[in-house]
Amino acid sequence: MSAPATAARARTGLEALFAPRGIAVVGASATPGKLGAVMAEALSSYDAPLALVNPRAEGMHPGLGAAAAALEAPLDLAVLCVPAAVTAATLREAAAAGVQAALVCAGGFAEVGGPGVQHQQDVAEVLGETGIRLLGPNTSGFFVPRLGLRASFVPGVSSIAPGRIGVVSSSGGVNHAVSFRLQQAGVGVSLGVGLGAGIDVTAPDVIDHLAADRHTAVIALHIETVADGPRMMEAIRRASAVKPVVALVIGKNDVAEFAQSHTGALATSWRTSRSVLRQCGAVLVGDETELVDAAVALSRTRIPAHPDPGVGLITGQAGPGLIVADQLAGADVTVPRLTGATVSALSQLLPPLTFQANPVDTGRPGPEFPEVVRAVAADPGIQAVGLYGILEPVVDLPAAVEEAGLAGTPALIAVDGPPEGTAAAVAAGAQRGLPVVTGPTALARGLAALVRDARAQHGLGRAAVAAPPISAGTGPWDEAEAKDLFEAAGIPVPARARAGTREAARAAFRSLRTPVAVKLVDAAVLHKTEIGGVHLGIATEAQLDEALVTLDRAGAKEYLLEEMAPSGIDLVVGARRDPVFGPVVLLGLGGTAAEALADVALRAAPLSAGATGSMIDELAGKALLRGWRGGPSVDVDQLTHVLAALGATLTADPGIAEIEINPLRLTADGLVALDAVIVATEVPTEEE
Amino acid sequence: MSAPATAARARTGLEALFAPRGIAVVGASATPGKLGAVMAEALSSYDAPLALVNPRAEGMHPGLGAAAAALEAPLDLAVLCVPAAVTAATLREAAAAGVQAALVCAGGFAEVGGPGVQHQQDVAEVLGETGIRLLGPNTSGFFVPRLGLRASFVPGVSSIAPGRIGVVSSSGGVNHAVSFRLQQAGVGVSLGVGLGAGIDVTAPDVIDHLAADRHTAVIALHIETVADGPRMMEAIRRASAVKPVVALVIGKNDVAEFAQSHTGALATSWRTSRSVLRQCGAVLVGDETELVDAAVALSRTRIPAHPDPGVGLITGQAGPGLIVADQLAGADVTVPRLTGATVSALSQLLPPLTFQANPVDTGRPGPEFPEVVRAVAADPGIQAVGLYGILEPVVDLPAAVEEAGLAGTPALIAVDGPPEGTAAAVAAGAQRGLPVVTGPTALARGLAALVRDARAQHGLGRAAVAAPPISAGTGPWDEAEAKDLFEAAGIPVPARARAGTREAARAAFRSLRTPVAVKLVDAAVLHKTEIGGVHLGIATEAQLDEALVTLDRAGAKEYLLEEMAPSGIDLVVGARRDPVFGPVVLLGLGGTAAEALADVALRAAPLSAGATGSMIDELAGKALLRGWRGGPSVDVDQLTHVLAALGATLTADPGIAEIEINPLRLTADGLVALDAVIVATEVPTEEE
Repeated sequence: MSAPATAARARTGLEALFAPRGIAVVGASATPGKLGAVMAEALSSYDAPLALVNPRAEGMHPGLGAAAAALEAPLDLAVLCVPAAVTAATLREAAAAGVQAALVCAGGFAEVGGPGVQHQQDVAEVLGETGIRLLGPNTSGFFVPRLGLRASFVPGVSSIAPGRIGVVSSSGGVNHAVSFRLQQAGVGVSLGVGLGAGIDVTAPDVIDHLAADRHTAVIALHIETVADGPRMMEAIRRASAVKPVVALVIGKNDVAEFAQSHTGALATSWRTSRSVLRQCGAVLVGDETELVDAAVALSRTRIPAHPDPGVGLITGQAGPGLIVADQLAGADVTVPRLTGATVSALSQLLPPLTFQANPVDTGRPGPEFPEVVRAVAADPGIQAVGLYGILEPVVDLPAAVEEAGLAGTPALIAVDGPPEGTAAAVAAGAQRGLPVVTGPTALARGLAALVRDARAQHGLGRAAVAAPPISAGTGPWDEAEAKDLFEAAGIPVPARARAGTREAARAAFRSLRTPVAVKLVDAAVLHKTEIGGVHLGIATEAQLDEALVTLDRAGAKEYLLEEMAPSGIDLVVGARRDPVFGPVVLLGLGGTAAEALADVALRAAPLSAGATGSMIDELAGKALLRGWRGGPSVDVDQLTHVLAALGATLTADPGIAEIEINPLRLTADGLVALDAVIVATEVPTEEE
Repeated sequence: MSAPATAARARTGLEALFAPRGIAVVGASATPGKLGAVMAEALSSYDAPLALVNPRAEGMHPGLGAAAAALEAPLDLAVLCVPAAVTAATLREAAAAGVQAALVCAGGFAEVGGPGVQHQQDVAEVLGETGIRLLGPNTSGFFVPRLGLRASFVPGVSSIAPGRIGVVSSSGGVNHAVSFRLQQAGVGVSLGVGLGAGIDVTAPDVIDHLAADRHTAVIALHIETVADGPRMMEAIRRASAVKPVVALVIGKNDVAEFAQSHTGALATSWRTSRSVLRQCGAVLVGDETELVDAAVALSRTRIPAHPDPGVGLITGQAGPGLIVADQLAGADVTVPRLTGATVSALSQLLPPLTFQANPVDTGRPGPEFPEVVRAVAADPGIQAVGLYGILEPVVDLPAAVEEAGLAGTPALIAVDGPPEGTAAAVAAGAQRGLPVVTGPTALARGLAALVRDARAQHGLGRAAVAAPPISAGTGPWDEAEAKDLFEAAGIPVPARARAGTREAARAAFRSLRTPVAVKLVDAAVLHKTEIGGVHLGIATEAQLDEALVTLDRAGAKEYLLEEMAPSGIDLVVGARRDPVFGPVVLLGLGGTAAEALADVALRAAPLSAGATGSMIDELAGKALLRGWRGGPSVDVDQLTHVLAALGATLTADPGIAEIEINPLRLTADGLVALDAVIVATEVPTEEE
């Protein structure tokens, strides 16, 4: 499915937007403070011909045709500072003048309803006819500091330095906020883009562009909505193979009404977006400060693909080191105990007052510090090193790390001190190719990002599990049919028999091991227990007869008799169709409490081999699957098979909308599907 | 129990430490870089006489007696730059010379074991005999920027500005890290203290000192261990009545081995410490960056005590505003829809393109901005206002807020922009008494801190619930005794009967409504179900007889027969003695999954009236208690009574170590305690 990178580059073709040979500002103005004046001023620092267009302003071009004719270079980009109502017409004029890309800052399109909807349709029509690429509408623009190209009406961006981090944001405001925050952190930006409404140029387009951009070392994403799930997944999968992708997804909590007014409805859930993007290789973060911490850490170094990289933590002060260690443990980052040989080497270097087994507490770093760093990095369990120190004149962490000569082991440094001191440390790190952040939390978050990136790469590098596709019928499914389907797919189900009459039920009862469960079979009934349609622990024919009478009263047409499973831990697994990302599979814990807590892990189908283990890791109640209080541990291969089979079923059969096995019980004998619902896709009624 | 503030001030008596009239550095040195030289240099900027003591150094005093005699002011403070082995002797010499307080930076005491334990005992003995106060050992000191007093060997602290935030940290390193971070945020520090081992001066001492310090507006705490729980609770309760207290507690995850090497064992749990400190009025935060965000917000303004303050959020850019709104929702902060009158007023001020119902998206702030702020702040549902804007020359948020004239409604401003721009905005805010932070996340965290502080104050202002003390026996308890106890305390229990013989059991069965549960009664058996000691759904005498036979085989001496409760949601409640904080009560959800998730809320006894509601709010699965899927909602008064009764029982009866009701079932008829364990305190065997 994935196209070669060169094809992607050709298809996105965003050079006209992000490195134009000539620019025109339409609606330029000479009145200070007006958008058309601010934009013209901002673009004047870019080293390419600039044309100002305004038919009513003296000394400006009357139209784009005249501007193109006058310009000494191809007019690639038109920056539109005009209202929504005239945007479509202006774009048509631009295309006629040879313009290949446009930036539209104005709002007033579909997001406001009314005439705005028509304006947007008009614009879409022009795009379709002319092939012109459009960034926006409703954005504050973009900037490429390396080129001095600033298509933004925020004057402060002129001070943002060139750097290695590409910022792609749903929102013009967040693009600026994140870029300024990177500047505060002492690092620069390769490209900063606010997509706005994103009716043409979308996040996957820019991700493709940045994946191929040799000035960009890491991609930082801010995502409010995903318009085209498969395209986004493909772009992140492809980009993360060549450079790290860090993503902040908005909408954990209910902010739908406000979000709708901004960039539109949230078609999929926060949880689904995060899970799927992570699965494609992105490192997920929780807020814009963590986005910055992670991007800075990943902008200089990357741990090679690894299932569980070990981090060595070296700290000059125990208290801040304890904060880092606490957060690393919370982020599920392994800080392994160092080998005896390493500990022994460290004990020669450090005073006996400190903790040395990892974290390594050095006390105030002394001349032996580079040797300490070298010893920790050389430990076989260590794939990356984190260093913390309060700035003192006698201590220069970047120099010490350079002196240590880490031979490829990634390192992240954090300092605390006066602002001028931390800025100097960041600059010293940059000279040596070392990322430097401020404070214990930034160190922990940066290290966690390095580890998550390596884990994601490892997961993607493994071959996908081939699950047997399941042949399925159409129309509604009852429980007995569902279990036949599962059995065919190798999903364990209890021994059982279907019976249409009481006599057949009695015969079935004699063939099964008691006690049995006796249930009503009816595809139309989703919650059998609530109408008295389930009877458990039936051990005698007398009890069976009593149960059958009750089932008949509940409207049973058929019965299902089933051997009862041993006790165990109840899980819920399922598959459904996400409107954005297609078939997704879910794993959660059973029971009302787990349901209320929404303790569920989710992945897009098909699953890679490592996916099941990482899904279990995501569950807050994962301990229950791993021998809780001497109980059974889940067989990951068996669970992988169940999940892959569910995903494969939805992929193979468009007639199935949703499958839920609830509970899938974890017993000492393995997994067994005790109850299941299969929902058929609604088929539109045919008109006669 | 709580002493008047003046008494506390007299008792802590830390003026000799934090505002000494004269200082001596013992172990002073002329060799640059040595601790004794760095400390002497750091203290030279303080405006009080300074004596350098070193018998082996030319031009220095040979001892503390000579130094005191030579000094033109009382020698209040001795700063010891000497090894652990000679610390006790030096302290004794200091006390003889009239010194009232000492700072001991060295490590090498009890935390390293061996001879260090003896050194610490020697020091404790001198403190006991002389009454001299000691900060440390094993700390990098403290600083009072307002006085130019810097007893720290980190030279960078000389650039930390005077300010309104008092920092009290378990760790010298974290004291510096947090203070530098406050400096990065553009605000200053009133006092920064690292307690180190804290063998004499502890966090409650410094909290008492800061509560009475008119230069301190907010207290920022970093806590690794709590040595004296009741004293800490008292100090925070008293301080938070007069100024906000923000607390970061370390140890969420397992870092015990490293922590032990630093400041000692974690006697209580992270969860317990957080719950109890919150209950005493502190605002709890998750990392050092949030500590700074919260302290900055609370350093200029405080929402008056309120059960649920509403926040008005005004943003110049929708994208960052959405990040703030998402995080506020996640932090359980109410962002209420504005009244029709306010929305109507805003619609006159703002273009129709934006969302105005709260959050209020203004677009780029224009001249109408102060009026927008005034309208939002005047809304009856709004108790605080948050403002976000990307810096542009045309926008000055602090000036606009001042112009709005908020008449006491607290406001917090966040900006994003180039470093020099944000620094100017922070300074402009400070001139107007307005807190200014950087970025959406800092705004959300600051607003959440304002809201949590107001809620905590509200909770403390309400009268405590008086629970009936329960008279209890001694020795081990069986389930029947426990239920009798609960019944006496007004905790609902099922109708039941205790029977010593099968005949008595049959008689009891006839007196109860069927079906019943029949259980083994034995105080020595904690987990009856696991040995076949529980039989449910007994509806006939034949079934009863069968059950009694099985119970006899399981070793039953007595039986408990009990009417079965209707189905519902199972909770777990309990009370136990925390080694640091004394009696605490717990509330959680029942079932294996909830147990594995550790979804539990906890408070110290006695409970205030609002505590139960806030405990429910803390549960991840709180929806289950509030009419989940049409089921029953908990009666908060009834649950309060149950929890208060459990806490009162432990307070009243030292013979009970622990009570657990599991499950406490929430049914349509209210709560009912279905099973319970009471653990008696172990009584030491008397020697004959």
